[in-house]
Amino acid sequence: MREVLIEEQRDPSPILEEIVELATTSGVTLRFVSSQELSERSRTEVPQGVIAYARGLEPTSLEDLADMVKAGGSPGFVVVLDKVSDPHNIGAIMRSALSFGATGIVLPTHGASCVTPTVAKAAAGAIEHLEITLVPGTAGALVELRRASIWTVGLDASGPIDLEECAVLAEPLALVIGSEGRGLAPLVQSRCDVVARIALFGPLASLNAATAGAIACYVVSKARQ
Amino acid sequence: MREVLIEEQRDPSPILEEIVELATTSGVTLRFVSSQELSERSRTEVPQGVIAYARGLEPTSLEDLADMVKAGGSPGFVVVLDKVSDPHNIGAIMRSALSFGATGIVLPTHGASCVTPTVAKAAAGAIEHLEITLVPGTAGALVELRRASIWTVGLDASGPIDLEECAVLAEPLALVIGSEGRGLAPLVQSRCDVVARIALFGPLASLNAATAGAIACYVVSKARQ
Repeated sequence: MREVLIEEQRDPSPILEEIVELATTSGVTLRFVSSQELSERSRTEVPQGVIAYARGLEPTSLEDLADMVKAGGSPGFVVVLDKVSDPHNIGAIMRSALSFGATGIVLPTHGASCVTPTVAKAAAGAIEHLEITLVPGTAGALVELRRASIWTVGLDASGPIDLEECAVLAEPLALVIGSEGRGLAPLVQSRCDVVARIALFGPLASLNAATAGAIACYVVSKARQ
Repeated sequence: MREVLIEEQRDPSPILEEIVELATTSGVTLRFVSSQELSERSRTEVPQGVIAYARGLEPTSLEDLADMVKAGGSPGFVVVLDKVSDPHNIGAIMRSALSFGATGIVLPTHGASCVTPTVAKAAAGAIEHLEITLVPGTAGALVELRRASIWTVGLDASGPIDLEECAVLAEPLALVIGSEGRGLAPLVQSRCDVVARIALFGPLASLNAATAGAIACYVVSKARQ
């Protein structure tokens, strides 16, 4: 962390005290600024009175990520996003992925938003703990992951099997999540070893991408317990 | 539906054509308006070019909702929100609840936002299909639901059992979801028959309220298959 700015008119609160204490004990520059300066510098809609400037993210290569998934006592899993464009959804998926034990996330650098301030905020800290891999395209990344002996499981409402019936959930795995509107692109589907669905009911059966991703991570984590 | 407004500068698209056709065949008044009029009338941040005025929602009484949960061939379930305040989360929970077969949702009318335009938009149509019950407070509603022989299952990170181990998931059920920051209030917890957790891992193990609600509905729907 390089610098923390706090809105000077902010009412005292335990969370602000904690931020001040952490910044002080860690030797991070702390400045109290006007509401105007805070909102001018903020790049999210609701800055909530605090801005922290951190070192830049250091992405992990796809090769290193694949090694991490296979290393250690039990196999890991990663989440691959294919054209998920809503930054709130990207951040929310990162938070859920981390909370269900994922090693990292694979993000395509075109056709979707990348790690913006809104993504970071929705991720609620997950970007500091999850390995982040940036790839030029999803389909190519899946080919590489399969070559590295990682199972690629696509999520799509039209998938022929229920995700829970997928036999490889406890193996080294990449879960592939498609865009909010159209699901997985045909080329991406064809690069998946398995395409699975989450069983839904009713007149409007559909989940948003973040919800589908969270449930898929939950199912994978349960299969490993 | 009473009236549909469409932004006149909008580029043609299949979804707009479908809206125009549905409005025309259903005899709903259709007006093309300027961007300015549309954004003035809109009550969400990103109106996406279309506003529809519908008849008011007709809430279901708690007593009727309890009857519906117990009626029919297989027992139903409802979601009860306790101080969930983010309208995006409320809408997202409604969408997930419907997609996993819930009968309805119980919303307290104070201490949380109610069915606003932002809630309706995030619900992606679910408010038209889900029974909606408004109650003065969550704790009182849980007492009534228990009296009506409906199991009340609270979700809380500190819950003593894993939700999947809960023995009553296939019975008539009310899932109780707490606020984003603080989980379930102590009084509400004490009114639940069971308090259960979703198993999480890692340094930042936490889910947002909408994600926790979606996973809980998923687990209940799976227990009934």
